[in-house]
Amino acid sequence: MKIITVSREFGSGGRELGKRLADILSWDYYDSEIITAIANKSGLDKQYIENTLNNGSWHSYPITFHATLTPSHQQISRISLLVDQEKVIREIAASGRDCIIVGRDADVILAEYHPFNIFVCADTEAKVKRCQERAPADEHATEKDILREMKQIDRGRAQTRSFLSSTAWGDRANYHLVVNTTGWNMKVLAPAVAAFAQAWFQENP
Amino acid sequence: MKIITVSREFGSGGRELGKRLADILSWDYYDSEIITAIANKSGLDKQYIENTLNNGSWHSYPITFHATLTPSHQQISRISLLVDQEKVIREIAASGRDCIIVGRDADVILAEYHPFNIFVCADTEAKVKRCQERAPADEHATEKDILREMKQIDRGRAQTRSFLSSTAWGDRANYHLVVNTTGWNMKVLAPAVAAFAQAWFQENP
Repeated sequence: MKIITVSREFGSGGRELGKRLADILSWDYYDSEIITAIANKSGLDKQYIENTLNNGSWHSYPITFHATLTPSHQQISRISLLVDQEKVIREIAASGRDCIIVGRDADVILAEYHPFNIFVCADTEAKVKRCQERAPADEHATEKDILREMKQIDRGRAQTRSFLSSTAWGDRANYHLVVNTTGWNMKVLAPAVAAFAQAWFQENP
Repeated sequence: MKIITVSREFGSGGRELGKRLADILSWDYYDSEIITAIANKSGLDKQYIENTLNNGSWHSYPITFHATLTPSHQQISRISLLVDQEKVIREIAASGRDCIIVGRDADVILAEYHPFNIFVCADTEAKVKRCQERAPADEHATEKDILREMKQIDRGRAQTRSFLSSTAWGDRANYHLVVNTTGWNMKVLAPAVAAFAQAWFQENP
């Protein structure tokens, strides 16, 4: 079985790259599917799960679900969700089907399966542009808003990873390939990355 | 004209990868050739030039050439060599021939030519093994010796780059592709990287 994990900076296009890789390779694709599975198991709201798992700071979003929880309970809730997430990701791997998993620290959780680990980054300007292009028409975030959100989400990802691993999010030492998407057409980049990963799996079956 | 720059951690195999890329693409290849050119221009010893340019700490190697220089003169000597190096690298680019340049901060110096910038890294264990395998038969460096040399050389590279650029050596933001060579056969990795770079140049002619 072959697994590619895609970690990414917010706005870098890692999700699109992962989806395109799955299409090119005809592999299964997991991203928000993992949150849906946790929601189905736990009965919790998807957005709450997403926020709790990804956001490093505890007080920067409204906690409508458990408004009366003390920070210590929130911490427990978060750890519990991380355990649920790990279970879902392990179940995906246990299915034995080739797959792409975007985010969720799958590179750490599935290390024993020797996935091919990609980190996707981009220049700040390109990330802002990408976010602006993809924003809903009724959303009017300024560049400053986007930069703040970008920083907050990436910090959350780094902090979530630090719960699970002593190795740092985005550190080149932890990935097989770090790809900067700036200047690439995704339709050209995706097959180039797919070919690269296929060469890896031929070399490391 | 197309230029690929290869920056690399000591022991990661970046030089071999660069050489193989040049062979696959039939492009010119520059590495120690740059030092030779500076030596020919300046009349200085090649090893002295190499040490002065790459070593961040001023007192860790014998300065046989200018033993009486004060640190301030050494600093001047280093800056002068950096200027010479920049001239040589600019001459290479001005020739208009497609080329691969390994090290020497060519990614910074030739930024206006929009080179495809690769950073090559590897796991520490793999780098130590590579250094041991490539050491001359009469050299008996311990693992500790190699780790110390590795750290010193990479620190020197980072410091040299900091003279020329506000961007950091090895920071993923500054490269198109960061490749970890651990687990790769160079004969398989090199064509995979070459294909990736060719896709880039087709996209960004």
